[in-house]
Amino acid sequence: MSVTAPLGFRAAGVAAGIKGGGARDLALVVNDGPSRAAAGVFTANRVKAAPVLWSQQVLAGGRLRAVVLNSGGANACTGPEGFQDTHATAEKAAEVLQDSAGEIAVCSTGLIGERLPMDELLAGVETASAQLSRDGGLAAADAIRTTDTVSKISFRRGAGYMVGGMAKGAGMLAPALATMLCVITTDADLTGEELDAALRQATSRTFDRLDTDGCMSTNDTVLLLASGAAGVRPDLAEFGQKVQEVCADLARQLLVDAEGASKAIAIEVVGADSEDDAVKVGRAVSRSNLLKCAIHGEDPNWGRVLAAVGTTDAVFEPDRLNVAINGIWICRGGAVGDDRDKVDMRPRDVTITIDLSAGPHTATVHTTDLTADYVHENSAYSS
Amino acid sequence: MSVTAPLGFRAAGVAAGIKGGGARDLALVVNDGPSRAAAGVFTANRVKAAPVLWSQQVLAGGRLRAVVLNSGGANACTGPEGFQDTHATAEKAAEVLQDSAGEIAVCSTGLIGERLPMDELLAGVETASAQLSRDGGLAAADAIRTTDTVSKISFRRGAGYMVGGMAKGAGMLAPALATMLCVITTDADLTGEELDAALRQATSRTFDRLDTDGCMSTNDTVLLLASGAAGVRPDLAEFGQKVQEVCADLARQLLVDAEGASKAIAIEVVGADSEDDAVKVGRAVSRSNLLKCAIHGEDPNWGRVLAAVGTTDAVFEPDRLNVAINGIWICRGGAVGDDRDKVDMRPRDVTITIDLSAGPHTATVHTTDLTADYVHENSAYSS
Repeated sequence: MSVTAPLGFRAAGVAAGIKGGGARDLALVVNDGPSRAAAGVFTANRVKAAPVLWSQQVLAGGRLRAVVLNSGGANACTGPEGFQDTHATAEKAAEVLQDSAGEIAVCSTGLIGERLPMDELLAGVETASAQLSRDGGLAAADAIRTTDTVSKISFRRGAGYMVGGMAKGAGMLAPALATMLCVITTDADLTGEELDAALRQATSRTFDRLDTDGCMSTNDTVLLLASGAAGVRPDLAEFGQKVQEVCADLARQLLVDAEGASKAIAIEVVGADSEDDAVKVGRAVSRSNLLKCAIHGEDPNWGRVLAAVGTTDAVFEPDRLNVAINGIWICRGGAVGDDRDKVDMRPRDVTITIDLSAGPHTATVHTTDLTADYVHENSAYSS
Repeated sequence: MSVTAPLGFRAAGVAAGIKGGGARDLALVVNDGPSRAAAGVFTANRVKAAPVLWSQQVLAGGRLRAVVLNSGGANACTGPEGFQDTHATAEKAAEVLQDSAGEIAVCSTGLIGERLPMDELLAGVETASAQLSRDGGLAAADAIRTTDTVSKISFRRGAGYMVGGMAKGAGMLAPALATMLCVITTDADLTGEELDAALRQATSRTFDRLDTDGCMSTNDTVLLLASGAAGVRPDLAEFGQKVQEVCADLARQLLVDAEGASKAIAIEVVGADSEDDAVKVGRAVSRSNLLKCAIHGEDPNWGRVLAAVGTTDAVFEPDRLNVAINGIWICRGGAVGDDRDKVDMRPRDVTITIDLSAGPHTATVHTTDLTADYVHENSAYSS
């Protein structure tokens, strides 16, 4: 269903020859209106890829006619020439759509530091525009994969409207945002400001709490486009909830497809003095390589949890910390709790619950284990 | 030479049966004076092991008669009972030395969250005290090993005095401090305050700039003991330099013995607006799992360097960043520089130079690559 689930959108995914090997590597998503309201959230990395710099400028206007996405190259750290390449990509899309480049976003993903093969890419934009269709969402989701083993798509129904989405991302997943490209569409009718508020809220609770390897990308982009084709002004609370559900669904798909991962780990922080504290502790624990190795080895090593909690400035007393793994409270009061042999570590899903005993606030951060496969995949990526 | 290189010190290392398997696991280092001046630097982790809490109290007095160190158990997250175990260890050492427990430091290393076998440990203190000798430094250095494959020892000569040291540490090496136990001795005559100043300066420039896996321990301890037996009041600048050299030498030994590492990576940050900025950038880069995997794969992936630099708030402009790997400037002005094929990635030592083009300050942070061996070693540690 993907981005073409809502009315008013067409999409295509084609093999432009950017990646080589005949795989799809270029996607085009077009909003046929009547509305073009849009919003975007981008990487917090100060080293931003050319398409991020471009799309941020475009989104300042709060409107998008189309999005061009390519895999096979990030177009990051490519200097002024790289920015010109992105500009030329938007101009080509504007030309084939007989529209303005100022309302065309561009997203790229792949290796940093290499120019894109522009002849192939621009020809691909033409090919894609000829293949645009109401059922092109799946092909588009396929075309943005890099090391993703599967396409990631989602949709939800609201009261008289739809929200659809696609995403890619399998490594370099860290806040803020999880490293990824994501396009979400809706046929509801909302303003750019309303879309922006809904998108920021949704991403802060979903993609921003996904941290598989602590590495923040140069290319993260999440776009939300509204066609208004359903003719419905949605209830904003319900709409925000639907967008968040689509984001959460896509985030979960990214997590289980993370490079080399064999476990999906939910770090549930409870009893925090503030939500910020809970997120801070969850992030610190999600970044402990030693803990991620232990979980890979099915070792309920709560000592490594406490060692990570202790690196934060969250409100807590060390001797009031409690930790459960898969429901067994193996650490109580900062020391040994229930029998660690009772913890069943075999399921793919592992939940680590950390009680800070400091207040009523909670947050959950998601990560994966650290495996030899992760090392292998990331040792060989560009060579 | 180790901790018994300077006059006035005896040491021993014995197999007390804490680890099992007949390996040495308990060390005793004794200062026979005439001075007992001492200083200590401890983990910044808020979850501190019992021996850290104990030794911090002891060091408040600025004097140490002896240090008891054990491998085979960290005595961290063991509650009030664990603290009592540390206290009993100091009392036992005081008894065999006919001295005060208030001047006995205790250091422990090993698995978090398990009580130490106190019968074996206390008997080991007695055995060690009977074996104390002027050439016991090597046995003591051997007894504190956990996953260390070799003992780490060092010494330097000053004008009429010596500085000796031993350390352990092979994983969980991160600031502040690198995870480790370290005892440094000197026969020069200095006050506790002078030792404290020298030790803080030395560790901030050495162990604090070693970050192999981003994980901060609950047990880090670096102690500096002065016997005054050489009868020399040293030049403080020279003494500080000698202590720093011993720390740097030991830090280097920790680095090359880091768990599973196949590369020793120096991240040299130049052109920084401040030394703090340089350290901040060095640390961020040293913690990029993706970069560490790339170096393991002998891939000079400068894009991952820039992605890590971009996560910091250091002063820099993305389009003025330059990066060299092993002397080849493969990134210039934030974009592609010299030919990456010219970079020889085969040596074990890899130097990544990052020029922030923002000022005159520099700092170097040391790390290792991320390997499948690291994952294997840390997946199986406690099981």
